Amino acid sequence: MPKVRVTRRVHFSAAHRLHNPGLSDEDNRRTFGLCNSPNFHGHNYELDVTVEGEPDPDTGYVVDLGHLRAAAESVIGDLDHRNLNVDVPWLAGVLPSTENLVVAIWARLAPLVPRGRLVRLVLWETPRNYAEYTGD
Amino acid sequence: MPKVRVTRRVHFSAAHRLHNPGLSDEDNRRTFGLCNSPNFHGHNYELDVTVEGEPDPDTGYVVDLGHLRAAAESVIGDLDHRNLNVDVPWLAGVLPSTENLVVAIWARLAPLVPRGRLVRLVLWETPRNYAEYTGD
Amino acid sequence: MPKVRVTRRVHFSAAHRLHNPGLSDEDNRRTFGLCNSPNFHGHNYELDVTVEGEPDPDTGYVVDLGHLRAAAESVIGDLDHRNLNVDVPWLAGVLPSTENLVVAIWARLAPLVPRGRLVRLVLWETPRNYAEYTGD
Amino acid sequence: MPKVRVTRRVHFSAAHRLHNPGLSDEDNRRTFGLCNSPNFHGHNYELDVTVEGEPDPDTGYVVDLGHLRAAAESVIGDLDHRNLNVDVPWLAGVLPSTENLVVAIWARLAPLVPRGRLVRLVLWETPRNYAEYTGD
Amino acid sequence: MPKVRVTRRVHFSAAHRLHNPGLSDEDNRRTFGLCNSPNFHGHNYELDVTVEGEPDPDTGYVVDLGHLRAAAESVIGDLDHRNLNVDVPWLAGVLPSTENLVVAIWARLAPLVPRGRLVRLVLWETPRNYAEYTGD
Amino acid sequence: MPKVRVTRRVHFSAAHRLHNPGLSDEDNRRTFGLCNSPNFHGHNYELDVTVEGEPDPDTGYVVDLGHLRAAAESVIGDLDHRNLNVDVPWLAGVLPSTENLVVAIWARLAPLVPRGRLVRLVLWETPRNYAEYTGD
Repeated sequence: MPKVRVTRRVHFSAAHRLHNPGLSDEDNRRTFGLCNSPNFHGHNYELDVTVEGEPDPDTGYVVDLGHLRAAAESVIGDLDHRNLNVDVPWLAGVLPSTENLVVAIWARLAPLVPRGRLVRLVLWETPRNYAEYTGD
Repeated sequence: MPKVRVTRRVHFSAAHRLHNPGLSDEDNRRTFGLCNSPNFHGHNYELDVTVEGEPDPDTGYVVDLGHLRAAAESVIGDLDHRNLNVDVPWLAGVLPSTENLVVAIWARLAPLVPRGRLVRLVLWETPRNYAEYTGD
Repeated sequence: MPKVRVTRRVHFSAAHRLHNPGLSDEDNRRTFGLCNSPNFHGHNYELDVTVEGEPDPDTGYVVDLGHLRAAAESVIGDLDHRNLNVDVPWLAGVLPSTENLVVAIWARLAPLVPRGRLVRLVLWETPRNYAEYTGD
Repeated sequence: MPKVRVTRRVHFSAAHRLHNPGLSDEDNRRTFGLCNSPNFHGHNYELDVTVEGEPDPDTGYVVDLGHLRAAAESVIGDLDHRNLNVDVPWLAGVLPSTENLVVAIWARLAPLVPRGRLVRLVLWETPRNYAEYTGD
Repeated sequence: MPKVRVTRRVHFSAAHRLHNPGLSDEDNRRTFGLCNSPNFHGHNYELDVTVEGEPDPDTGYVVDLGHLRAAAESVIGDLDHRNLNVDVPWLAGVLPSTENLVVAIWARLAPLVPRGRLVRLVLWETPRNYAEYTGD
Repeated sequence: MPKVRVTRRVHFSAAHRLHNPGLSDEDNRRTFGLCNSPNFHGHNYELDVTVEGEPDPDTGYVVDLGHLRAAAESVIGDLDHRNLNVDVPWLAGVLPSTENLVVAIWARLAPLVPRGRLVRLVLWETPRNYAEYTGD
């Protein structure tokens, strides 16, 4: 049986700020530049969720993309139109870089995938940069 | 002489919140929904700046797009990686909907266009919605 | 008060076929080529809905884009995952070219716009061609 | 010698319907929802064809992309402006999910690649979802 | 009868250089910067061709987009994979800015439009800047 | 510690020509077609630079994307608005196919990556074709 990967893109808009409370204000500014701006800034994030498996002979689906979308939205629903530094219990203590976000989303989403196996998340912060995680 | 329009796209990332201080919290939530979320959210904005004029016979340019970009960035530099409700003096008292933002940006940018005449601004809040203003 | 235009993009996927029952099969094939293929083909359509008006001073909105999206989806809900030649009562007798579709959608959608005035519809049949209608 | 991958994107538009004749109509509707709509719907598909190999020292090419495009179009020419459930002999009995389509296209296309080795196909059904196959 | 606009996008790749032979080398460098680089540079151009008219009742077409594409390609075929400063007789003496190119293409293309009337050309030099001409 | 990949896209515009001086003019024309056009043509190139590593606990960064962008631009600055056959010392003797370019860019860029490890370069020649190199 062939192994196929399917991907569904979902999106959310959020505010954040890069700030390490263990560093001085001066060091934060020097390290993070504009991303340390005190009153937050924000992004339109896009998340590409990739699941691998063998297509079900009855449906032709690795996973029903409607179900996968629902799983993904149950996670990013906590992030959409929120402040990633302030509003999200499961991001408490996480410095919200794209790298740290994609790892945190993986931990929430992987157990919810309804069929197949989560093999890749790509989180776009802007149309010109993204972070990619494969669970390693 | 032909009249031509040229457009240059620039971008910025910002946090904002839709909240009318003249309404109750309850009315704000009902009116703006998730966009009223208290600790802000944010977007990657794209701004398309269009200038009309006759190409200069010496350069073939309606306007040098490098100069136009510099003018546009001198305005959106105040917005990039900022909080539109809090950080921008020239947005004080402006409810930062895409509509109000594009009108406010026009007022700042129109006098700075180095050649030709500003005829259209398109401000994308997400890849699926935008506001467009032509100065009327 | 400034006049601003806002646009919201919505999408649907549909099957269709270009076939004029008043022409012979031979003439249909010659006129429409592959688009006349008997068992239908299909597209991912994108529809850009543009509304013009003065922003409401209380909300900053020309029109609440959530309400506009709901109005648009009440119309294209009849088209999504349907056959445009067979399934849609309000397209009966309409040759479903992009031009004819955008005019038919206008007639349904214009009265439903909740605030402001519908001024432009752009219907993309593929990422490389579209039809545009302004009500004239 | 370095190993490089080159990719060429091609496209086609087709109608299809997800329907398993081994299931009851009721089960088909429950399983496939709108995708089971009886008179078909359709999509603009994009296919990214990736070939790996060492660049030919005389041409700098892993594969001449004009030749690769011709090979890909000889396969998708059977699908373009067609009905995937009805019109394509080599899809007879295949439930035309994106997963099953990409596997079927691989089987046709792999032997036709004129230089190098087919290593990945990505088939986009919409701009927000795709299936990916690497021959495993 | 409704008036509708249809647009078809075509593309070409070309080399060019901005250089005014009436200016000194020093003035050319100061005016055009990197665009004056002596051995040329190049772009992937996209051209959006828009035609307005009433849909033909027999076809639903303002203009057959296959015919429009053929007309457009008969013009840009002179530009594709060419050097705009050197290779194109009908650009002799034209400083190949995007503005001047779009006006020159209009003059060649307008008489070839097979049905309806050319009302807009948009010539993209990069994904972030374009020139637009409406024949005025 | 998780391993994450981050990608930053950068761009440049350049002229080139595919021509093998070891072949006759006739063989060059037959092999490369329009890409052999004598006075060059050009492209808007996009380069996606991917770096893998563990996020730094102090910053959440695999690599500061501003630093990565600076490294990438120090390399492609030699290519931007240049002629790849004529102007670039480190491309002397390289037939500038996309494949050969991506390998040559890797050799320059890999040692400059400021943190983490370069694991993938994707070089887009047009929006519909690219070459991809992972250092093998």
